[in-house]
Amino acid sequence: MTDFAATKDLFHLPEGIVYLDGNSLGPLPKTAAARVAKTVEAEWGQMLIAGWNKAGWMDKPMSVGNRIARLIGAEANSVAMGDTLSIKVYQALASALEMNAPRKVILSDSGNFPSDLYMAQGLCRTLGAGYDLKIVAPEQVHDAIDETVAVTLITEVDYRTGRKHDMAAITAKAHSMGALTIWDLAHSAGAFPVELAKAGADFACGCTYKYLNSGPGGPAFIYVAPRHQDRAQPALSGWQGHDAPFDFDITYRPAPGAERMRVGTPPILQLAALEASLDIWDSVDMNALRRASLGLTDQFIAGVEAACPTLTLATPRDHKDRGSQVSFRHPEGYAIMQAVIARSVIGDFRAPDILRFGFTPLFVGASEVDAAVATLADVMANDLWDRPEYKTRKKVT
Amino acid sequence: MTDFAATKDLFHLPEGIVYLDGNSLGPLPKTAAARVAKTVEAEWGQMLIAGWNKAGWMDKPMSVGNRIARLIGAEANSVAMGDTLSIKVYQALASALEMNAPRKVILSDSGNFPSDLYMAQGLCRTLGAGYDLKIVAPEQVHDAIDETVAVTLITEVDYRTGRKHDMAAITAKAHSMGALTIWDLAHSAGAFPVELAKAGADFACGCTYKYLNSGPGGPAFIYVAPRHQDRAQPALSGWQGHDAPFDFDITYRPAPGAERMRVGTPPILQLAALEASLDIWDSVDMNALRRASLGLTDQFIAGVEAACPTLTLATPRDHKDRGSQVSFRHPEGYAIMQAVIARSVIGDFRAPDILRFGFTPLFVGASEVDAAVATLADVMANDLWDRPEYKTRKKVT
Repeated sequence: MTDFAATKDLFHLPEGIVYLDGNSLGPLPKTAAARVAKTVEAEWGQMLIAGWNKAGWMDKPMSVGNRIARLIGAEANSVAMGDTLSIKVYQALASALEMNAPRKVILSDSGNFPSDLYMAQGLCRTLGAGYDLKIVAPEQVHDAIDETVAVTLITEVDYRTGRKHDMAAITAKAHSMGALTIWDLAHSAGAFPVELAKAGADFACGCTYKYLNSGPGGPAFIYVAPRHQDRAQPALSGWQGHDAPFDFDITYRPAPGAERMRVGTPPILQLAALEASLDIWDSVDMNALRRASLGLTDQFIAGVEAACPTLTLATPRDHKDRGSQVSFRHPEGYAIMQAVIARSVIGDFRAPDILRFGFTPLFVGASEVDAAVATLADVMANDLWDRPEYKTRKKVT
Repeated sequence: MTDFAATKDLFHLPEGIVYLDGNSLGPLPKTAAARVAKTVEAEWGQMLIAGWNKAGWMDKPMSVGNRIARLIGAEANSVAMGDTLSIKVYQALASALEMNAPRKVILSDSGNFPSDLYMAQGLCRTLGAGYDLKIVAPEQVHDAIDETVAVTLITEVDYRTGRKHDMAAITAKAHSMGALTIWDLAHSAGAFPVELAKAGADFACGCTYKYLNSGPGGPAFIYVAPRHQDRAQPALSGWQGHDAPFDFDITYRPAPGAERMRVGTPPILQLAALEASLDIWDSVDMNALRRASLGLTDQFIAGVEAACPTLTLATPRDHKDRGSQVSFRHPEGYAIMQAVIARSVIGDFRAPDILRFGFTPLFVGASEVDAAVATLADVMANDLWDRPEYKTRKKVT
C-alpha cells in the first residue's frame, strides 16, 4: 500500500504552487538532480567512452524498459526505451502494417493526439498505393473495426477530455476481425494500472515525461507482444537494433526480441533522470494509485460543478471511462486558464476550448483539489479572466 | 586565432589519461555539469511546464541548430536538432527520394557507417517495388554516380580509416547527373571546417556526441539546403514539425523551412549539455583547428611508423583525403588496443582489424601524441598485448 502523503515529499514542488499539469510535464523527483549529476560527472566525465560498458549505458534501453513494463502490465523484455513517442508510433505502425498485409487501413479516432495521426499520414504517403488512415469519432471505434482494418492506432486516454477507451474490448474486437492493435499510453502509463498482456495488446508506446516524471524530452517506450517480437520487422532499422551492432556488418539483421526496436544511440542523460523517477515508481501500488486518482477527480468534478455553473464537464462521469485528468469546456477557456495559472494553480489549455487539470496522487492530494476549486471558483465568479493580458496567446499553451 | 593550449583547460579530463577517443565520445566540458544542473533544477524544477516558454525549450532545436550551422558552413535557419543520426538519415533519404522521383537508387559506399546503410535498407523495404540501395567501394563513388541515382548517401569521413571524401567534387558530379546528395557529418562536424553551402550540398546530418562534446546520446542534427526546404516533405511528420503544433489540427501541414524536420518533443537535458559545449565551439577558428589537427595526425603517423613496423597505416597520407583520426591495421588489433587502453591511452577498435585514434586539438596536443606513440611502441615492441585478458571481447568496443 503506497502512502501518498509520503510520496509528495519525494518531489520538488515550488512553494505555493498547486500543480495540476503532471499529465503534461511531471515535476522533478528530488533525487533526479543528483542522479543526472552523477551521470554527467562520475560517468561521462570520469569513464568517458568506457561508460558504455562500465556504467551500463548500452543496456539502459532494455533495463529501464523492464521497470516500465511493470507499470503497464507488460512481459519482461518486451519494452524498449528511446526516441520520441512519435517515432515509436511510426515503428509500431510500419511493423503492424507489414505483418497484416495485404490490408492497408489504419483505423484511428479524432480524439487521438494529432502527432499520432500525422505520423500515420506520413507513413501512408511513403507506402503509397492504397494505404489509408481512417479517422472516426472516438465512440465509433469499436463498431468501425471491420475486416478491412490492418491495425488500430488508438490513444487509450483522450488528451483533451480524459475519456478512456476500453482497451480489452477494442483489442478483442480487433482480433476478432483479424486486425492488430497499437495502444498509445501517453496518458495511461503512470496514470492507472495498464494491463497490456492481459488485454492481448499487440503493440503499445508511450512517453515518460508526463505521469512518469522523466523531465522535458524524456525518452519514449515501445512495447511489442512476445508473440510478435521475432516477426515484427523494424522499418527504422538502426544499428542499436541490429543483432550484433559492433560487428559492423553492412547488412541489417534484427536483434531478437523487442530490442530490435532500438534505433540509434540512447539519450543517457535523459534516461538517468527517468531512472531517478522510477526509483519512486518501483514501489507504487498501481491499484492504490487508481483509487486515489478517482477520489481526486471525483472531488474536483463535484467541487467545480457546484461552484462554476458556466463550465461544462468534458470528462466522463463513469469511472471506467475516465483517465486521471478532468477537463471542462468554456469558450473563454484560454483566458480562464491564464487567470488560474496567475493564481498559482497550474493546469493547461487545449484548443479550442478545453481547460485541462491532471490529478497525480504521488504529489497531489485532497487539499490541493480544494485549493484549485476555490481558485477556479473565484476566477469565474468575479470574471477575473476578462483581462487583455490573459487573452494573448503564448507559443506553448 | 584559437589558443589550443588554453582550450584544454575547458574540459574535464581524468588525471593521467591520454584521450584519443573524442571522435567516439567527446569529453565533458567543465561548464556542462552546472548547465545541466541549472536546466534540471532552475528550469524543470522551478518553472515546470512553463519552461517550454520561459526557458526557451521549445525553440532550442532551431536556436542550437544555428550554432551548429557555423561549424558546418550552413545557412541560418537551415539546421534542426533532435532525434538520433539514424533517424535524421532516414528523414533526409525519404525526402530526397520523393523529390527525385521516379529515380529509385540510393548510392552509398562500403565505408559508410553501417547504421546509415541499415536505415536505407529499411526505407527501401517500406517503399517497395524497385527501390534499391547500391553499395560501391569508397573510391568508386564518383564514377558510380549516373543518371539512375536518385540520391547519394555518403559519410564524408570513413569511421574506420579516417579517409575523407571530396564533398565538393562528389556533390558536383551528383548534380551533373541530376542526383541529390546527403552528407553524413558524424566524423566531420567539429573535426574540420565543413562547407555545406559552398559545396552545394542538398541534405546533411550528423551527431554531436563525438567531436562536438555533447555527451552520451546527445541530439543529432539535419541540414536542408534553403532551396529545398519548402519542397522537402517530411516522412516522419511529427507534431513539432507542424506549421502550428498547438492548433492540434488532425491533418499534417509542414512548418516552413528546415523546422519541418523536427519530429517529437526535444531532449532538453541533452540539449543543455550541448549548449555548454557550444559555448566553447562558438569561438573556435575552424581553419586553425584544421591546421592543428593535421599537425597532430602527421606527428602520430610519423611516430608510429618509425616505432611500430608491424602496424599498417589505414589513413590517407594526403592531407586533403584525411579527417581528424589516424587508424592502423593489425590482425591482433583488438588485443593491442586493450593493452594500450590499460596503459591509459584511450583509443578504440573497429572490426575487423582497425586501431583507431582521434585527434581533437581542443584538448589534445603534441605532448599527448608523444605519450601515445611511446605507449603503443612499448606495447608492440614487448608484445604486451599478448595476454588472455586483452583478447576477451567486451560488449562495446
